[in-house]
Amino acid sequence: MPTPNSQQRALLERAAAVIPGGMWGHQSVAMVPDGYPQFFERAEGARIWDVDGTPYLDFMCGYGPNLFGYGHPSINAAYVRQMEQADTLTGPTARLVELAEAFVGMVSHADWAMFCKNGTDATSMAMVTARAHTGRQKLILARGAYHGAAPWCTPRPSGTLPSDRAHQIHCTYNDVESLNAAAAEAGDDLAAIFAAPIKHDAFIDQEAPTLAYARRAREICDQTGAVLIVDDVRAGFRLARDCSWSTIGVQPDLSTWGKCIANGHPISALLGADKLKAAAAGIYVTGSYWYQAAPMAAGLETLRLIRETPYLEHTVRLGQRLRDGLAERASAAGFGFRQTGPVQMPLFLFDDDKDLRLGFAWATAMLERGVYTHPWHNMFLCNAMTDEDITFALDAAEASFTHLKSAAPGLGPVAKMAFLLA
Amino acid sequence: MPTPNSQQRALLERAAAVIPGGMWGHQSVAMVPDGYPQFFERAEGARIWDVDGTPYLDFMCGYGPNLFGYGHPSINAAYVRQMEQADTLTGPTARLVELAEAFVGMVSHADWAMFCKNGTDATSMAMVTARAHTGRQKLILARGAYHGAAPWCTPRPSGTLPSDRAHQIHCTYNDVESLNAAAAEAGDDLAAIFAAPIKHDAFIDQEAPTLAYARRAREICDQTGAVLIVDDVRAGFRLARDCSWSTIGVQPDLSTWGKCIANGHPISALLGADKLKAAAAGIYVTGSYWYQAAPMAAGLETLRLIRETPYLEHTVRLGQRLRDGLAERASAAGFGFRQTGPVQMPLFLFDDDKDLRLGFAWATAMLERGVYTHPWHNMFLCNAMTDEDITFALDAAEASFTHLKSAAPGLGPVAKMAFLLA
Repeated sequence: MPTPNSQQRALLERAAAVIPGGMWGHQSVAMVPDGYPQFFERAEGARIWDVDGTPYLDFMCGYGPNLFGYGHPSINAAYVRQMEQADTLTGPTARLVELAEAFVGMVSHADWAMFCKNGTDATSMAMVTARAHTGRQKLILARGAYHGAAPWCTPRPSGTLPSDRAHQIHCTYNDVESLNAAAAEAGDDLAAIFAAPIKHDAFIDQEAPTLAYARRAREICDQTGAVLIVDDVRAGFRLARDCSWSTIGVQPDLSTWGKCIANGHPISALLGADKLKAAAAGIYVTGSYWYQAAPMAAGLETLRLIRETPYLEHTVRLGQRLRDGLAERASAAGFGFRQTGPVQMPLFLFDDDKDLRLGFAWATAMLERGVYTHPWHNMFLCNAMTDEDITFALDAAEASFTHLKSAAPGLGPVAKMAFLLA
Repeated sequence: MPTPNSQQRALLERAAAVIPGGMWGHQSVAMVPDGYPQFFERAEGARIWDVDGTPYLDFMCGYGPNLFGYGHPSINAAYVRQMEQADTLTGPTARLVELAEAFVGMVSHADWAMFCKNGTDATSMAMVTARAHTGRQKLILARGAYHGAAPWCTPRPSGTLPSDRAHQIHCTYNDVESLNAAAAEAGDDLAAIFAAPIKHDAFIDQEAPTLAYARRAREICDQTGAVLIVDDVRAGFRLARDCSWSTIGVQPDLSTWGKCIANGHPISALLGADKLKAAAAGIYVTGSYWYQAAPMAAGLETLRLIRETPYLEHTVRLGQRLRDGLAERASAAGFGFRQTGPVQMPLFLFDDDKDLRLGFAWATAMLERGVYTHPWHNMFLCNAMTDEDITFALDAAEASFTHLKSAAPGLGPVAKMAFLLA
C-alpha cells in the first residue's frame, strides 16, 4: 500500500505529470481497488515485487503472457543469444521460417503463419484477410467480447466513429438463435464470424463454448463461404497444445495468437488454412519491429516447452486445487463465491455483489496478504507456481474471507464501479 | 545471390510453404531486384550478413530503427539488464515514467507521452485522440503519405472497406492551396491535419516541407481548433534532437514516434501538448506488451546517446560526403542521378527511368559489391558508419555506374515495377 513517503506514491505523482490519466490501458489501476500498486520493480517465476519491495504471488501473469514463469532462463537465454546475433534488421532471419513451421506443426487447422506485435494486429489482420478472401463486408461478433483495442474493436469508443464499426453484427455468445439471426441479417455479405475460444468477458461469469454454438458457427461459414476466426490471443496454449477449439473438434479457418506464445516477449500471430493463403498474401500489413528475430527465438523455445513439458497438466492440477480450496473456504465463511472459466484461467465473483464491494474488499485483503488477484478480469496460473504457492494463496484466502465476514456489513459503495449499477 | 544450393534458396522454398507469399510487409523482397537476399543471419554496427554469410554495408538500417549501429553494446546491455529484472509484468515499472519524462524533456511541444509497439499504433492513437478532443470527424492527409498499415491508412487497400477510410480528405504535400481547399471541405468538422515531417513517400523525389505549408497547417488548426499531428515515426531524431518540425519553428499538438527511439527494440510513442491530455486519458488503447520495461530501458539509453553524442552531426557529415561523391561519380558516368531528402535519409532515382530499370540494375550492382541500397525507398545512415564505409560505398558506386553504362542499353523492362508505367 502506498504511504506518503513510498516509492509508489512518488511514481504515481511523477506519472500524473507526464502521462495522460497517470496511466492508460488494461494495466491502469484506475479500475482496481485503491491501494493496488501501479508500478513494479522485479519479477521472478510466479512473483512480482512492487517498487516498495513488497512481493506478490501474481495470478494475473502479466494479463496472460507469463506462462512458464517470469524471467524464464532458457526462454530469456534464447532471446539474448538471438538479439546479440541479429534482431531488428533490414530483413528477417531463418527464425521466422522456423517459427511458422513450428506453429503449423502444432496447430492442426493451420497451414501458414504471419507474425506481428499486438494481439490487435492479429485480429485486425484476420478481419482484413477474411474480407479480402470473400470480397464481403459483414462481421459477426459476440456482444461484449474483447478482440483488441483498435478503433474497430476497442471496448471504450471515445474518439472512434460509427464508421469504424461499420458492417458489424452482434450476437450473444453460446446463443445459437442469435447467431442464426446475425447470419440472416448478414445475408450474402457475410465475411467472417469472430469467436472467442471461451467467453472470457470481463465483469461476468465465464462460459465454455457450447458444442452447438461452435458447430453452428462452423456450419454457417461452410454454407456461406464466410471465414471462421477463433481469437485465441488470450487463451491460446492455456487450454490445449493446439487451437483452443480443437478440444471440441471445431476447426477455424483463421486463428489469432499472442500473449504467452513467447512467454512475454513481444510477438503475436495470425495462423490460417491454405484456402486463405492467397488472400493473406494480398493484404498489406506490416510494422517496424514485426520481423525482429529475438522474440521469434524466444517463441521457438516457448513452443518447445509447450510441446515437451507437462505445463498444461500442471496448471490444470494446481488450478483445480485452488478452485476446490477456495470453494471450501468461501462456503465455510458463508459467501456465495462463483469461480468460472477453466481452472487455469479463473474469474472470481461474489454473489449479490453488483458494484463489486465484496470483490474489491476481498481482493484488497488478498493483496495485503501477498496475493495479487483481480476482482473482475480473468486470471491465469503459470507453470512456475507450486503446490506451496497454492497453499499460500489458500491460507491468504481463508484469512481474507474471515476478514470480509466482519468487514462486509460496513462496506460502502465502490465509486469506481458505480457504472455497473447503471 | 542465391545459387541452387544456397541457404537463401532453401529458406525461400521453406518460407513459401508456410508463409503467405513467402513473406509479407515492407521487408518482402517481392518489390526489390531479383537476387536481393530475403533472409539474414548476423548484424553488427552498419553491416548485415545474409544467410549465406555475405556481408553488406546496410543503407536501409532496418528501414529506420538502426540509428547507433546494430547490436549497440550499451543499448543492448540496458535491455538485458532490465529484461532480467522485470519486463512484461502485471504493471509497468518506473522505466515508463522515466521514459515519458525523458521525451517531455527533449521534445519541445510535448507535455506528456504514451507508449505502444507499432508506428501504426501511435498514428492510430493520434487520430483517435484528435477526434476525442474535438468531437469532430474529418482528417486531412497528404495524398500518398505513409502513416501506417492499419485498415484506415494502409497503402494497399485489399481487404479494407471504404468505411475504414471514411471522413478522410486528401491534399497535396507542400501545396498550400490544396490544404486550404481540404480545410474548406472539412468545414467545422475538421478533427486533425496529419503531416509527415518531410515528404518521404516511396518511388518519388523527397521534399522538405515549405515553411508556408507547415505554417498554414498550424494556422488552420489554430483557427478551427483542429489538432496538428506530425508523424515523426520515420524521421524522428534523424533530423533534430526534437520534433522534426522544430527545425522550421512549427510546433504540432501531437507527434508520433517509433523506429529508432530504442535503436530497434520494439517501442513507439505518442507525444502531446497539455491541451490534448484529457482526451488522451479518455481513449482506450492498449496492447499485451506495451508496458514491457526492457524496450523502455533501451529507449532511455538511446535518448541519452541522442542527447549526449554527435550522432546527428556525424550522420549529416557522412551523408553529405556520400551525396557529393555519388553526384560526382554519376555525372562522370553521364547519368542523371537524383539524390533527394536529407543527406542522412537519402533516396536515389535515375532520370528517365520510369520503370526503374536503371535503378534496379544499379542497386543490384551495388549489392554485388557489398552495399545494400534501395531502388525506390528512402534510406538511412547510422552512427556506426565511418568515413571508410563511405569510401567503400563510393568505390562500389563508381564501379556500379561504370557497369551500368555498358549494361544500360541492354536492360529490359522490370516486370515487378510495371505498375509504375500504368
